[in-house]
Amino acid sequence: MQHITSKDNPNIKLYRKLASGKKHRRETGLFVLEGIRLISDAVKENAKLHSVFITESCLEKMQGEALDFQNTYIISEELAESMADTGSTQGVFAICEAHCKVPASDTIKSGGKYILLHSVQDPGNLGTIIRTADAVGVDGVFLAECCDLYNPKVIRSTMGSIFRLNVSEVRFDEVFPLFKERGVRTYAAVIDSDAVSLTDCDFSEGGAVLIGNEGNGLPRKVSDSCDVRLTIKMQGNVNSLNAAMAAGIIMWELEK
Amino acid sequence: MQHITSKDNPNIKLYRKLASGKKHRRETGLFVLEGIRLISDAVKENAKLHSVFITESCLEKMQGEALDFQNTYIISEELAESMADTGSTQGVFAICEAHCKVPASDTIKSGGKYILLHSVQDPGNLGTIIRTADAVGVDGVFLAECCDLYNPKVIRSTMGSIFRLNVSEVRFDEVFPLFKERGVRTYAAVIDSDAVSLTDCDFSEGGAVLIGNEGNGLPRKVSDSCDVRLTIKMQGNVNSLNAAMAAGIIMWELEK
Repeated sequence: MQHITSKDNPNIKLYRKLASGKKHRRETGLFVLEGIRLISDAVKENAKLHSVFITESCLEKMQGEALDFQNTYIISEELAESMADTGSTQGVFAICEAHCKVPASDTIKSGGKYILLHSVQDPGNLGTIIRTADAVGVDGVFLAECCDLYNPKVIRSTMGSIFRLNVSEVRFDEVFPLFKERGVRTYAAVIDSDAVSLTDCDFSEGGAVLIGNEGNGLPRKVSDSCDVRLTIKMQGNVNSLNAAMAAGIIMWELEK
Repeated sequence: MQHITSKDNPNIKLYRKLASGKKHRRETGLFVLEGIRLISDAVKENAKLHSVFITESCLEKMQGEALDFQNTYIISEELAESMADTGSTQGVFAICEAHCKVPASDTIKSGGKYILLHSVQDPGNLGTIIRTADAVGVDGVFLAECCDLYNPKVIRSTMGSIFRLNVSEVRFDEVFPLFKERGVRTYAAVIDSDAVSLTDCDFSEGGAVLIGNEGNGLPRKVSDSCDVRLTIKMQGNVNSLNAAMAAGIIMWELEK
């Protein structure tokens, strides 16, 4: 395995560029991973790794897990620390190809259950929603105008679910007509005591729930075009449900 | 209003000590708050503020909201930045008295709905669970061997719910018998496909759900002493539900 010691090595420079900016990720179709669990999940789910960077001490810990792979480089502890996004790094990093998305037109099927996130901006929320969608078994998550799916913080928060779940970035006006066309009922999640209570919605024949921005919810135009406006009726302080938790409860009811 | 410019002012020193360590919070029964919303919530819910520190520019923004209050000090922007816990501070801080807890013996009533958290260690998780408990309308949250409730990160994550909800730190062996005594059925949340599905639990006559540590769950001794072992049956990857989300879904079903 090749050793890298210089910060100016082209692969290290590529890693840094991908870690820090959306623009470079878009141009190359690559993104970065950090940590044993996330990289193991990527390998397990057959994600395509472009390159792996690992310290000697981490190599021992991983016992070769990700390393039946040709583009693996040994890096110094010092270099690892300079690449780390989190405070204490485990010493393993990878550049990964943005996984080949199933086009929305193939994902959306009559009877399916979907979540469409509109303008969700917090990377931690986005990652947690994807992670929860994987747990409850949603058929697909669509992102319209959200923060970048390949932001390292989103990827980390998904805890590997990004590799298991059908997640795709879409244009709203491209995907929304497909729900209508394929008989998938659309539900707008709103904060409005006059809307239909989540507990009164019958999702037995599938459905797509649209969830909006953390602060502003869905644009009126979007919620008006849905078949049903649904709301989570609260007993206490309604503002005390954060975006990811609200999405989690909705997905739980959707799949139950 | 008095001005403070020195970092060595005794009130500023007290603030710092309370912000950084549990020990000092325990000894004094005081904790710290930062930010307009949190301090406004504290005032709204009649929490007892020991002192407030505010910059001139923040004073204008708050338009006197928290300031019909005698122990308010004007601080410099520089001092504010040195006190800030978050990256960009709004410039307002307070020292608050740990709110007078209703003793567990008065909180637990036949037919009530409660959450008992055992060894939850992540401050963000603890805060989010308290926030969600407030939203769904749980009657009380009990903490046994959890991270410190008055840790600034917990307080921030509760988004003010700490002032609205009945939350208390308890000894497990002191509170558990009270559930039995008052006919409140106890449920241990476990990851076990043989346990009773959450959706099959009937909470119409109340109940107390026990939720364990993020990594290890409930100690066997604790889960065995409960009336029912309940589990969230997942369709996808069960490990993809984080502790706060699992607690949120359980509380949702408890209160529905």
